[in-house]
Amino acid sequence: MGGFLVTGSASGMGEQVANRLRADGHEVIGVDVADGADVVADLATREGRSAAILAIRERSGGVLDGAVMAAGVGAIRGRERLTVEVNVLGATALLEALRPQLAAADKAKVVVFGSNSTTSTPFVPRRVVSLLERGETERAARWIGRLGALSAPVAYAASKLAVSRWVRRAAVTREWAGAGIRMNLIAPGPVLTPLLRAQLASGSGRHVRSYPVPALEYGTPERLADWVMTMLSPAADFMVGSVVTVDGGTEALLRPTAWPARLPVRGVPRMLRLLREAPRRGQVADYSDI
Amino acid sequence: MGGFLVTGSASGMGEQVANRLRADGHEVIGVDVADGADVVADLATREGRSAAILAIRERSGGVLDGAVMAAGVGAIRGRERLTVEVNVLGATALLEALRPQLAAADKAKVVVFGSNSTTSTPFVPRRVVSLLERGETERAARWIGRLGALSAPVAYAASKLAVSRWVRRAAVTREWAGAGIRMNLIAPGPVLTPLLRAQLASGSGRHVRSYPVPALEYGTPERLADWVMTMLSPAADFMVGSVVTVDGGTEALLRPTAWPARLPVRGVPRMLRLLREAPRRGQVADYSDI
Repeated sequence: MGGFLVTGSASGMGEQVANRLRADGHEVIGVDVADGADVVADLATREGRSAAILAIRERSGGVLDGAVMAAGVGAIRGRERLTVEVNVLGATALLEALRPQLAAADKAKVVVFGSNSTTSTPFVPRRVVSLLERGETERAARWIGRLGALSAPVAYAASKLAVSRWVRRAAVTREWAGAGIRMNLIAPGPVLTPLLRAQLASGSGRHVRSYPVPALEYGTPERLADWVMTMLSPAADFMVGSVVTVDGGTEALLRPTAWPARLPVRGVPRMLRLLREAPRRGQVADYSDI
Repeated sequence: MGGFLVTGSASGMGEQVANRLRADGHEVIGVDVADGADVVADLATREGRSAAILAIRERSGGVLDGAVMAAGVGAIRGRERLTVEVNVLGATALLEALRPQLAAADKAKVVVFGSNSTTSTPFVPRRVVSLLERGETERAARWIGRLGALSAPVAYAASKLAVSRWVRRAAVTREWAGAGIRMNLIAPGPVLTPLLRAQLASGSGRHVRSYPVPALEYGTPERLADWVMTMLSPAADFMVGSVVTVDGGTEALLRPTAWPARLPVRGVPRMLRLLREAPRRGQVADYSDI
C-alpha cells in the first residue's frame, strides 16, 4: 500500500526522482507518454488524463504517500496547446482527482514543477493566466495563438504561472493542508538535460549561452532531485504553498526587489479580513494546551 | 581549517544548526551575546561586530565553508534600534567583512534568516527599508520611532525586508556567486521556540493563537534546521539568491498571487538590458565545449 506518483518519470528530473525513491525502497507509480512507464498515458488529452487517474488509483491501493508532477512541455512554436494542457491540467486535474488518496496517507507531500521563467518572461497576458488557472485551456490557447513570435514562450510561462497559482491557492485550504497534505512548488532554472544540451549545440546555441546564470553553471537533474527529495521528506511537514527556486540566481538577478515585497496599502483590508476569518475557517494552529 | 560560522548559536534555530553541524563532524564557530559561545559578542553595536569579525577571522584560519546568520531580535516595543542593528548589520556587516574567507572555500554556502512577516506586515514605509538596506540604521530607527503602536512590528519586518534585499542583490554578483559562494535566505513562519511558547501562555496568547497557519501546527527548530542543512549541502550548488519559505502556508494564504508574478510591461526595458549585459558582466554559464 502507499507509494509515490511521479509524472514525467521516463526522462529528466522525473526519472531522477523516480530512481531515487525506488533506491530508498519506496513504491513508485511512474506515468509517462513514453513506452515502458508503469502507466503509459498522454496527459495532453482529457482521455489520457482520465485513463491515468484510473490506473493510478488502482495501483495505489487507495493511498498515495506523495506525488511529483514533473511531466512538462517546453516552449515549442506550434505546440502551444500541448504545452498548456500538459503543464496545467496534467498536474491540476490529476491532483484534484487523487486528493482522497493523498489525504489517506499520513502527511502526504506533493511537489509540482513550476519554473523561474514565470517571473522573467515579458508580455504574458493576465487574461491567459486566469483562463489557464481555471482550466480553460482551449480559450487560453486561442489567445496565445494570436501572439505571433511570442506565442511559444508565453504559452510556457503562462502555463507555469497558472499551475503555480493553483498550487498556492489550493495548498492552504482545509481540503489540502487541513487534510495533512503538504503541497509545494519547485521552480528550476536551466538544467543540463538532453534538451538543453541539444539547444546549446544547435544554431541558436549562442542565444542560449547568453542567458544570465549568476552561478556560472547550469543545474543538474541530480541536484534538482535533491530538493524534490527534501520536499517529499518530513522536512516539509511545515512547508505549504512555497515556491523553492533553484535557478542559479537568475530570478534574484532579474527581479531582486520584486519578492519578498512589502504589503501594499491597498492590500491591507483583504489582509485584515483573512486574519479575522482564519480561526473560523479552521486555519490556525491548535495549541490550546500551552 | 575551514568550518562554519553560526550566529545566534546559543538558542533556537541557530543552536539547532550548530549542533547538527558539529554532529556531522564540522568545526563550528558559534557567535552569541550569551556567555558560553565560542565568540561572545554583541552584534547590536559596531564595536561588538568588529570584535566578532576579528575573532571569527582568527578562528577560521582564513577559510569558512559556510555561514548561518541566525542571530535576530523580534518585534519588541522600545527596542526598535536593537532590532534593526542585529537583524540587518548583524548579518550584512559580518558577511561583507568575511567574504574573502568564504571565497577561499570551495563553494561556500551562506544562509541568512529572513522571515515570512516581510510580506504580510502592513504599513512598512518604503523609505525605512531603503535606509536599512544601505545600513543607515540610525536614520531608519528615527523614522520607525514616529510610528507609535506600529513601531515594533515595522522595525522587525523592515529589518528582514532590508536584509533579504541585500542578500538577493549581493548573492548574484561576481564577488559572491562568481566567487563560488552560494548565498540564500530562509524565511520561517512561527516556530515553537521558548519565545513562542511564552507568547502563547501570556495575556496576548489568544491573539497569537488566531494567527493563520494553514498547516494547523507550528514549525519546530528541528524541521527548520533540516532546511538550513540542505541549504549548506551540495544540493545548494545551483541555488543563489533564493528565498526558501517554511511557514506552514501563511504566506501562500495571505499573498497567493503576489509571487510568482508576471513581469510588468514597465519592467521589460530593464529586463532586456540585464539580458544584454549578462555576457559582458560574466554572469553566464560557460559551456563552450557543448
